[in-house]
Amino acid sequence: MADILTIALDAMGGDLGPDMVIPGADLVLQKNPDLRLLLFGDEPRVAPLLEAYPRVRERSAFFACSVWISMDDKPSQALRRGRRVSSMWQAIESVKQGRASVAVSAGNTGALIAMSKIILDTMVGISRPAIAARWPTLRGESIVLDVGATIGANAEQLFDFAIMGEAMARCLFNLERPKVGLLNVGVEEIKGIEEVKEAAQLLRESGLPMEYIGFVEGDDISKGTADVVVTEGFTGNIALKTAEGTAKQISAYLKSEMNRTLLSRMGYLLARPAFRALRDKLDPRTMNGGVLLGLNGIVVKSHGGTDPLGFAAALEVAVDMAENHLIGKIGADLAAKQALMDRLRGAEPEAGIAS
Amino acid sequence: MADILTIALDAMGGDLGPDMVIPGADLVLQKNPDLRLLLFGDEPRVAPLLEAYPRVRERSAFFACSVWISMDDKPSQALRRGRRVSSMWQAIESVKQGRASVAVSAGNTGALIAMSKIILDTMVGISRPAIAARWPTLRGESIVLDVGATIGANAEQLFDFAIMGEAMARCLFNLERPKVGLLNVGVEEIKGIEEVKEAAQLLRESGLPMEYIGFVEGDDISKGTADVVVTEGFTGNIALKTAEGTAKQISAYLKSEMNRTLLSRMGYLLARPAFRALRDKLDPRTMNGGVLLGLNGIVVKSHGGTDPLGFAAALEVAVDMAENHLIGKIGADLAAKQALMDRLRGAEPEAGIAS
Repeated sequence: MADILTIALDAMGGDLGPDMVIPGADLVLQKNPDLRLLLFGDEPRVAPLLEAYPRVRERSAFFACSVWISMDDKPSQALRRGRRVSSMWQAIESVKQGRASVAVSAGNTGALIAMSKIILDTMVGISRPAIAARWPTLRGESIVLDVGATIGANAEQLFDFAIMGEAMARCLFNLERPKVGLLNVGVEEIKGIEEVKEAAQLLRESGLPMEYIGFVEGDDISKGTADVVVTEGFTGNIALKTAEGTAKQISAYLKSEMNRTLLSRMGYLLARPAFRALRDKLDPRTMNGGVLLGLNGIVVKSHGGTDPLGFAAALEVAVDMAENHLIGKIGADLAAKQALMDRLRGAEPEAGIAS
Repeated sequence: MADILTIALDAMGGDLGPDMVIPGADLVLQKNPDLRLLLFGDEPRVAPLLEAYPRVRERSAFFACSVWISMDDKPSQALRRGRRVSSMWQAIESVKQGRASVAVSAGNTGALIAMSKIILDTMVGISRPAIAARWPTLRGESIVLDVGATIGANAEQLFDFAIMGEAMARCLFNLERPKVGLLNVGVEEIKGIEEVKEAAQLLRESGLPMEYIGFVEGDDISKGTADVVVTEGFTGNIALKTAEGTAKQISAYLKSEMNRTLLSRMGYLLARPAFRALRDKLDPRTMNGGVLLGLNGIVVKSHGGTDPLGFAAALEVAVDMAENHLIGKIGADLAAKQALMDRLRGAEPEAGIAS
């Protein structure tokens, strides 16, 4: 028998709050018989939903919270109002206390990062967390990080992102040796910033059992050239949103062209299953679930604007990460990284003498 | 009668070289009766094409060059081999000498940037050049810069990019007051890097007749929220290539879905004009023509892999920039900027005393 797995849900996150979280949880419980939930939220809103979804009621422990973070609270406000008492804080704290393996929230991203950092703290050897996003590609799916947990990263931090993203890819894609690439620009003359070049050197010399494939460019992400694409949070966030915008733009073009003439409308009707399949492929719900990596505990961020199906996808990511012991995998790699960094630092004076 | 306009072409650039450049030039000469060309290239290859395209022969001066830059030469190699003698160098030099208003090349980007910087030098008040790309949007077209001329930019350099991009938008889109946005990330807690925040302050306080609309995010580019989107070259290059990759990915999805069943293939046939219109909208040829801004002369970069139609689009950009006196417009704004910077620098000690 598989072990019982417990996941903590901030029932108040997202535009729809419990109306999305509880039906989404129901979908995932149905598929995962060994899953249990801790639910944190506003009793008057959650209780009727638990009546409507008996499966959720039976397999959850509910904790009433009278404070929750709104989608437009600033992180500082969220921390002032929501420290200890809010549904978001308590969901994360249950991970810290070992009562849940992962926390999932569709709430305010800034608040979620800020609270997670305070409650869980960064892992030994990691100086800053990263958000890893799932990205649909022509080969299937890749992971891109950091997509905006922090801004800027030095070489060692990029190296850390590679380690964390690679461990996540092993958990999520069931790959033994995911391919890891460093996002860079292709213009020969300038070929990347110093941090990226130095991170490349660390990855080449790491001795970790990691398949580092070198630099990749922006168009390699959607090609699926690498399973894990590493960049700092400013560039990663802009790349992610640019891709989302481009997908929406093309969908809008397609819709308007298909509506223009009678013939094109008839063609659309005939090919409707094909258009549905395309829509499903571009459906952001299927790729929902960003993972906040680098803390002593896993926090999964769902899109705020999603629905029960999308929230269920984020919850499935949480299940994958917990079942495959993501934190343990990262920890093992970090020990190997530490040995490398010690060696490089120790080797520096020697190299100086030798040269 | 309109003035005669002269544009210099590196006939050897691009995957197809003269086979693309000469037919492309023919298309543009046909539409622009006052345009004259200077052609730089390999005589054995160019001469037969001039026979085949008499319009080009009649309205061009041809200069034989026995050296040209290959697409995979490194900039340093290109400079060693191609200084003074190459077709690319000579096309750019004709702008410096005032014999042509703009130079156009589909050649090696790194070499083109390196040679342009050496030959033309940066404008007074500009510390580094930028490449401005045309970007199709839901509202039409925008300009994004820098997409990879250099990496990293301080606040003043971002401000310069805004000035140059705005002047280009006035020339290319015939707008009196193009909207200018600064590319940034949306996560509340971190809200951008220092350089971007400082550039925002410069733009707000500039007193230039510029419509600065504030921060925009990655998905605002394709929405067309701003006519000019300003960022540094690393992020800009990655955003551009990510968008290109996403467009290809969706086209591939669509093609495969439309081929899957007999019904969808029939639907495709009925709606073929709609698909053609979509393909035209996504056709990178129509958006060809990146402009290297910030030098004492204009250089337009065409995609290397394009065809005569695509090269003609880049040439049309060159015509627009020259006819609308881009360099003069930038120069006027730079004078206003200099006054602002002097005022800010002069004001700093006073502010210190006042506080």
